Amino acid sequence: MNFASDNVAAVPAELLDALVAANQDTAKPYGEDEYTALAGRRFWELFECELVMLPVATGTAANCLGLACVTPPWGAIYCHQTSHIEMDECGAPEFFTGGAKLVKLPGHGGKIDAATLGEALSQAQIGSQHKVQPAALSLSQATEFGTVYTPDEVRSLADVAHSFGMKVHMDGARFANAVASLGCSPAELTWQAGVDIMTFGATKNGALGAEAVLFFDPALAESAVFRRKRAGHLFSKMRYLSAQLAACLADGRWLSWAHHANSMAQMMANGLAQVPGARLEHPVQANEIFITLPSAVVEGLLGDGFWFYRWGDPEPDTVRLITAWNTQAADVERFIDRALFHAAHPKG
Amino acid sequence: MNFASDNVAAVPAELLDALVAANQDTAKPYGEDEYTALAGRRFWELFECELVMLPVATGTAANCLGLACVTPPWGAIYCHQTSHIEMDECGAPEFFTGGAKLVKLPGHGGKIDAATLGEALSQAQIGSQHKVQPAALSLSQATEFGTVYTPDEVRSLADVAHSFGMKVHMDGARFANAVASLGCSPAELTWQAGVDIMTFGATKNGALGAEAVLFFDPALAESAVFRRKRAGHLFSKMRYLSAQLAACLADGRWLSWAHHANSMAQMMANGLAQVPGARLEHPVQANEIFITLPSAVVEGLLGDGFWFYRWGDPEPDTVRLITAWNTQAADVERFIDRALFHAAHPKG
Amino acid sequence: MNFASDNVAAVPAELLDALVAANQDTAKPYGEDEYTALAGRRFWELFECELVMLPVATGTAANCLGLACVTPPWGAIYCHQTSHIEMDECGAPEFFTGGAKLVKLPGHGGKIDAATLGEALSQAQIGSQHKVQPAALSLSQATEFGTVYTPDEVRSLADVAHSFGMKVHMDGARFANAVASLGCSPAELTWQAGVDIMTFGATKNGALGAEAVLFFDPALAESAVFRRKRAGHLFSKMRYLSAQLAACLADGRWLSWAHHANSMAQMMANGLAQVPGARLEHPVQANEIFITLPSAVVEGLLGDGFWFYRWGDPEPDTVRLITAWNTQAADVERFIDRALFHAAHPKG
Amino acid sequence: MNFASDNVAAVPAELLDALVAANQDTAKPYGEDEYTALAGRRFWELFECELVMLPVATGTAANCLGLACVTPPWGAIYCHQTSHIEMDECGAPEFFTGGAKLVKLPGHGGKIDAATLGEALSQAQIGSQHKVQPAALSLSQATEFGTVYTPDEVRSLADVAHSFGMKVHMDGARFANAVASLGCSPAELTWQAGVDIMTFGATKNGALGAEAVLFFDPALAESAVFRRKRAGHLFSKMRYLSAQLAACLADGRWLSWAHHANSMAQMMANGLAQVPGARLEHPVQANEIFITLPSAVVEGLLGDGFWFYRWGDPEPDTVRLITAWNTQAADVERFIDRALFHAAHPKG
Repeated sequence: MNFASDNVAAVPAELLDALVAANQDTAKPYGEDEYTALAGRRFWELFECELVMLPVATGTAANCLGLACVTPPWGAIYCHQTSHIEMDECGAPEFFTGGAKLVKLPGHGGKIDAATLGEALSQAQIGSQHKVQPAALSLSQATEFGTVYTPDEVRSLADVAHSFGMKVHMDGARFANAVASLGCSPAELTWQAGVDIMTFGATKNGALGAEAVLFFDPALAESAVFRRKRAGHLFSKMRYLSAQLAACLADGRWLSWAHHANSMAQMMANGLAQVPGARLEHPVQANEIFITLPSAVVEGLLGDGFWFYRWGDPEPDTVRLITAWNTQAADVERFIDRALFHAAHPKG
Repeated sequence: MNFASDNVAAVPAELLDALVAANQDTAKPYGEDEYTALAGRRFWELFECELVMLPVATGTAANCLGLACVTPPWGAIYCHQTSHIEMDECGAPEFFTGGAKLVKLPGHGGKIDAATLGEALSQAQIGSQHKVQPAALSLSQATEFGTVYTPDEVRSLADVAHSFGMKVHMDGARFANAVASLGCSPAELTWQAGVDIMTFGATKNGALGAEAVLFFDPALAESAVFRRKRAGHLFSKMRYLSAQLAACLADGRWLSWAHHANSMAQMMANGLAQVPGARLEHPVQANEIFITLPSAVVEGLLGDGFWFYRWGDPEPDTVRLITAWNTQAADVERFIDRALFHAAHPKG
Repeated sequence: MNFASDNVAAVPAELLDALVAANQDTAKPYGEDEYTALAGRRFWELFECELVMLPVATGTAANCLGLACVTPPWGAIYCHQTSHIEMDECGAPEFFTGGAKLVKLPGHGGKIDAATLGEALSQAQIGSQHKVQPAALSLSQATEFGTVYTPDEVRSLADVAHSFGMKVHMDGARFANAVASLGCSPAELTWQAGVDIMTFGATKNGALGAEAVLFFDPALAESAVFRRKRAGHLFSKMRYLSAQLAACLADGRWLSWAHHANSMAQMMANGLAQVPGARLEHPVQANEIFITLPSAVVEGLLGDGFWFYRWGDPEPDTVRLITAWNTQAADVERFIDRALFHAAHPKG
Repeated sequence: MNFASDNVAAVPAELLDALVAANQDTAKPYGEDEYTALAGRRFWELFECELVMLPVATGTAANCLGLACVTPPWGAIYCHQTSHIEMDECGAPEFFTGGAKLVKLPGHGGKIDAATLGEALSQAQIGSQHKVQPAALSLSQATEFGTVYTPDEVRSLADVAHSFGMKVHMDGARFANAVASLGCSPAELTWQAGVDIMTFGATKNGALGAEAVLFFDPALAESAVFRRKRAGHLFSKMRYLSAQLAACLADGRWLSWAHHANSMAQMMANGLAQVPGARLEHPVQANEIFITLPSAVVEGLLGDGFWFYRWGDPEPDTVRLITAWNTQAADVERFIDRALFHAAHPKG
């Protein structure tokens, strides 16, 4: 049973149905098709504004295309030290931007706070030809530790960034989980709070491989189509990307799936809290749980065949559990039961 | 009716079925899944060698990842002046390589000949620090004009390239059509003829969006996985890419589809040859027809609602017609009939 | 005796004197010194406008910094097919721009004409995401063949470029020779004729190693200081660069030196015209002569120990002769005498 | 009086004399001249090995050319968090490498220790396609805080780096000061201790603008000449760069100049130690002093017209003082006297 990641889950039948439905007759290539137009309209409705939307297939592509549009080669991207763009993209932001620098900021629970950002920026020597120049703030929403920024927190951070002439980027690989957690509107959590560009992730929330780069200020998107093509991310048969996005947004599915994943995470967290010696490392606000368990429990669960990762930080027995759109309550219950069992019956 | 491109066609049901079949349970991410392994094995069988295979989603990505693995930033990629990498990728090869230069060669029918290549290379000043250094020869197979290189022609070109220390890349966006046309084996047309790296195209031959970068010499692939990730082309749910490739290769489908497209092109060429004043601009060896027709015929066909492009070269009334895996013989017949009709009844 | 290049000559004593004069006490680093300020003022006076001036040490750096300021990675730089940026910089423009493409144009005598440019641009598909986008026109003044553009020719070309939204760059490695040849003012030949950015070359005209990047529109220079530093071209002890530039511009030296070199080239061309069978390949308008001589003459001169290059184009016995600020009339006379001698006394 | 930097000082007369001496007759361009050959031989002698030497004009160029030869775009360069390449080059390493990442390490006195390096590398996930790959360790010798690595320390660090497959780079902008401080041979401090590539700095030690990139393993230099040209750092009149280097190395001048600067720093440190409340922040091992002084003393000295910088770290009244090849003992004495005076007579 998978608690390893949300990117190893199968996809909802609705998405395969959408591909079949899109597979009719010919369609204009390179995004001139009706499915891309439909997806675009649904994003306008969802975000209550006339954004520019570009479908791509991976989160790395989405993040880096967006960032490159606002970051010159001598720019600096401020991000949390645990962020995906810094840790897990093999230097993709550097590649897409032509060699920009990522400035890593600390912060509890994977979150940057406005004071930390402000202090870092106050030392940036803006205008000095010897220094990379602050260009973008990138916020992960939800964070790598499954915590979320409130709209007020986003606003505070965006205000600082904007006051230094930077743009605000949101890595929303798990944006759906954040919205589901906060109960606010997508608009409130993004452009109304100062976000300029974002990755709207669908892949971790069910899609086969589809993400949308959203530009709330169309002027920021001017170079985007050229960057997309140069990076090999312009799909000739774009309808099969766009149909996924359109289907995710239909009938609020994207949010339902995220709600489900989040609720499974809550169930898991609550259940594991009963394990003697368990300690939650971060608040569980989305679909990720970071929890330190007794060593015997961790080993017992792995021995049971559950699939999840030891995170190893801050303790060797800290584990990461991720729930997905299709996580079964029965599986969570079984996980909890077995954890309690192993806690009660440590091997020796 | 579509004769505009092979990338606007719908996809075969077998491919959607393959996606459904791959949508079972969890699968390891990033290419560690069984579908990717299966696709890899099928490529080994098809090409009769232990190649390295990387699935990506677009031809531009496949071409440029392959080329970047053998071309340093100060390298030169020799290619036909009409090649896709030079004309239609918005500088993607330059992006992926870190600024290499494409050297454009002339040649009839979209084909480079060995003498032209040899002469160009003899002026390259290899070793001079003032000059970009020949690194790769890129051959489009089939070419942009629907012609094909024979294995002997590939061998002659590869010999020249190798004698200058270069590697040989094949842009096989329409490789299936070339194989179908020539009747040789994939191995004979590639590594046995000196090709080192290739793009095996599936998208123009039916897939939703799937291409394979093939490295016949695994040593050339050393940097490939890092380049793929940095460019945002590492799919977390890679099974949905690989399942397409595996399904294309199953039961010789890829070749059947290409055979069909080619035969439709032959039918079209033969039929249009009967139009008075028609002149084929290039031999029809794959699934593309470049033909100059009387102006009244072109306008008449467009007026009928057929979808195809005026190519405008060498004549204003030269048109490009492309057939696909699903082109219907009845549609071709109707196109021919209408062409003959318009030739007999010019408006005016 | 050197007729091989103007970059192998020693430098005028005035320039070494200027270095000694600049070597007093401490000076602020990185261009905050008085010598850089002085050079800047002299450029303002010389060009009759408030340009932005950046001293660098090589022509390649100057050309590529300027071009990069106006050319995005997906941009195209239109240039003559024989231009230095295309032929002799090992891909430096591609490096500085992050992978732009150079579009090579033909033209007699190393010169582009406005009609050729216009026709090329009319096919550029501006706005298409599949195509690199015209960004800059680069004109070499004087050209690689020692010809010059008149102010009217520059204006015609600039008008075409500007009408397509491009900027105009001038590679003025031998700008001094062009001005000396034309008798116009620097302003007339540059910004008044539509040039936006230029390399003002001093190295081929006497300096140890000093070039100035000039931005006639300061807005185009916004990114220049960051690009300069990132490329390692910001000199801490900039005074020694700037002192060279200031000394070149003092008392019209730069123009006197170029006048001298040009007059030596005229003397040489006139003298060699008397050699039976000699044919000038290009008009001699600056300090370069491309002339085809009888084979026996070429061999005889090389045997005499004169240092110059066979150009090999259009004939094997076409040679390139370059004069410099310090070419001696007696040496030119001797060269001519010996050429006439060899013509009259062919060996064998 | 200058204690602000060693790059604001005038240059020794010997170097201007060397330029005059090199200004004879013609010289082959692009490094084929005798002065470059001479400089090369002197480096062989000095380092007791057949290294490859490339002259360039700035330290940033030298550092980044060297690093780029051993660091792929997906590589990581491990360096001290205060290193020049990280802090003061506006992202030049990222530019030259095509987007590599700098990994910042902490350490007292600007020095990395082997344990810190080993621990960081143990977390690097070598081979993972999601992660940048350790490629180079860069050591600043002397460091940004005027401390030096002993040969044993270099060896320990190099052993760790090599065990992870990395190459070792030394930023020797103040290498002369380090050698003067340690009394060892250049060979002992570099290749015999495991350094693979280095910047031998001359500019901060007297030169107008000249640095040498040294490759102790010639195989690592294979791409260097192409990278140099592409970056605009190939000088046509290279003799004027090389003559500086050759003159610095003649008669042990480079070491004498550094000895002098170091001794002036010692005198300064010893003198200021007598100021009540003074605290040296780092050991004075080269030509830089970081010292915290009473606020009144700092203000008094600035009021006296001495030119130096408040460093502001760790205290607002921490200052940085740099001595140079031409620092006068009398000036140091005067600085000390005035510091003592201000300490005794605080304003108020």
